[in-house]
Amino acid sequence: MTDSAAPHYPSVQAIGIVGLPEIEPGANLGRLIADAAARQGTPLMHGDILVVTQKIVSKAEDRVVALNSVEPSEFAAAYAAEAGRDPRLVELVLRESAAVVRMDAERGVLITETHHGFVCANAGIDMSNVPDEDSACLLPVDPDESARRIRADIEARSGVAPPIIISDTFGRAWRDGHVNFAIGIAGMDPMVDYRGTEDAHGRTMHVTTIAVADELAATAELVTAKAINVPVALIRGLPYRAAASSTAPLLRERSRDMFR
Amino acid sequence: MTDSAAPHYPSVQAIGIVGLPEIEPGANLGRLIADAAARQGTPLMHGDILVVTQKIVSKAEDRVVALNSVEPSEFAAAYAAEAGRDPRLVELVLRESAAVVRMDAERGVLITETHHGFVCANAGIDMSNVPDEDSACLLPVDPDESARRIRADIEARSGVAPPIIISDTFGRAWRDGHVNFAIGIAGMDPMVDYRGTEDAHGRTMHVTTIAVADELAATAELVTAKAINVPVALIRGLPYRAAASSTAPLLRERSRDMFR
Repeated sequence: MTDSAAPHYPSVQAIGIVGLPEIEPGANLGRLIADAAARQGTPLMHGDILVVTQKIVSKAEDRVVALNSVEPSEFAAAYAAEAGRDPRLVELVLRESAAVVRMDAERGVLITETHHGFVCANAGIDMSNVPDEDSACLLPVDPDESARRIRADIEARSGVAPPIIISDTFGRAWRDGHVNFAIGIAGMDPMVDYRGTEDAHGRTMHVTTIAVADELAATAELVTAKAINVPVALIRGLPYRAAASSTAPLLRERSRDMFR
Repeated sequence: MTDSAAPHYPSVQAIGIVGLPEIEPGANLGRLIADAAARQGTPLMHGDILVVTQKIVSKAEDRVVALNSVEPSEFAAAYAAEAGRDPRLVELVLRESAAVVRMDAERGVLITETHHGFVCANAGIDMSNVPDEDSACLLPVDPDESARRIRADIEARSGVAPPIIISDTFGRAWRDGHVNFAIGIAGMDPMVDYRGTEDAHGRTMHVTTIAVADELAATAELVTAKAINVPVALIRGLPYRAAASSTAPLLRERSRDMFR
């Protein structure tokens, strides 16, 4: 507070981590990320938060599936024929899903709830940025566990244990365009709770809980642009609440879901 | 590309703008923001983007309504009684809405489509951070126009015309916690379109359009925390596509809405 050299305004920086190799199954992502950050002159520091895009996590965990290994069910084949989609991909989406939220062949829409509880298009499966044209990339089996492992591997390599957020691209019910949100987290509270705090007028604020993990995922997307090879972002300067954490608080309970 | 002094990784900074006065109706926000940025030693530069939180825009535009001036309809009064809410506030929400999307007194939920086309809780009306306890703050009448005006006023004051995003807090259908998204924009394309571009493997990517204006609003929230007096954020370092723009591309057309 009394350090006159410190800026008196809040400032947060998002830095893309470049120079990671093509990720192979079994890769030690934490080690690769720590090394890449150091190589580019931005070694991980205490207080940093890391956002890791889902695709490299799935690749490291061997979640890339060859489509010719997939036998579509009759149900998948019928929908795929009507929607003009690959029946093997539809089959994978259904396998990765606990429930179908919207299925509309005419619009080509297949929105499901994944086994993790994420409501998203195509169970988060996508076919871009995988080496083989005839393969598809599934979400990690347990992205919170993935985040914990990456965090431990980074600590083992660098001595720093930044919170880890694993991000993926989501549509929204009433807005066009996609944004990145969190699908896995380790080491920080995904929420900032303003309920009960006082506003600038000393009045108690009533409603707002901010999903800071989702805002961090969205921030990271600004530097981890899709088509270029920047799969990780380092966020520097944001105070956070350390916690053993999971994405569970970000997921609306089904009993409170008004939109399915 | 050949400047060896330039960092070879992407980097984006979010800087909170502090020291704005309490905003009164008729305030020249653009001028106040440009001056505050200069005062704190981060004067606006070419390439900057500004995110302005909705509340100060509404205040400058005199969108704060005294609740005792509001006569609730019978419909509003009946819902309010059942939901345990202020009938005058419910009346304001309905007046600000073109359609009700979900109305559930038991859960106290009132999700509507505003006249602008935003689907959100309570038509974006809120009661925190307004000086008078018995008043409520409505969204700007035309947030795109607000953004254009702020932009022109900043240019007149500082000679720099940064894109302006006006942000507000949104819930999501299937995720808990709130995030900030864009409700107004001027000077940049709110979308980044990756469709047809090639991924790192030279394959054409098929689906993703990123709502970069929403990601910028979310990023800004990291430094414009609710309870403290930081109503504006400056985003520095993000390449953007200059455009005469509006929030219209961010709003899903009703004919494509599968969730109401």
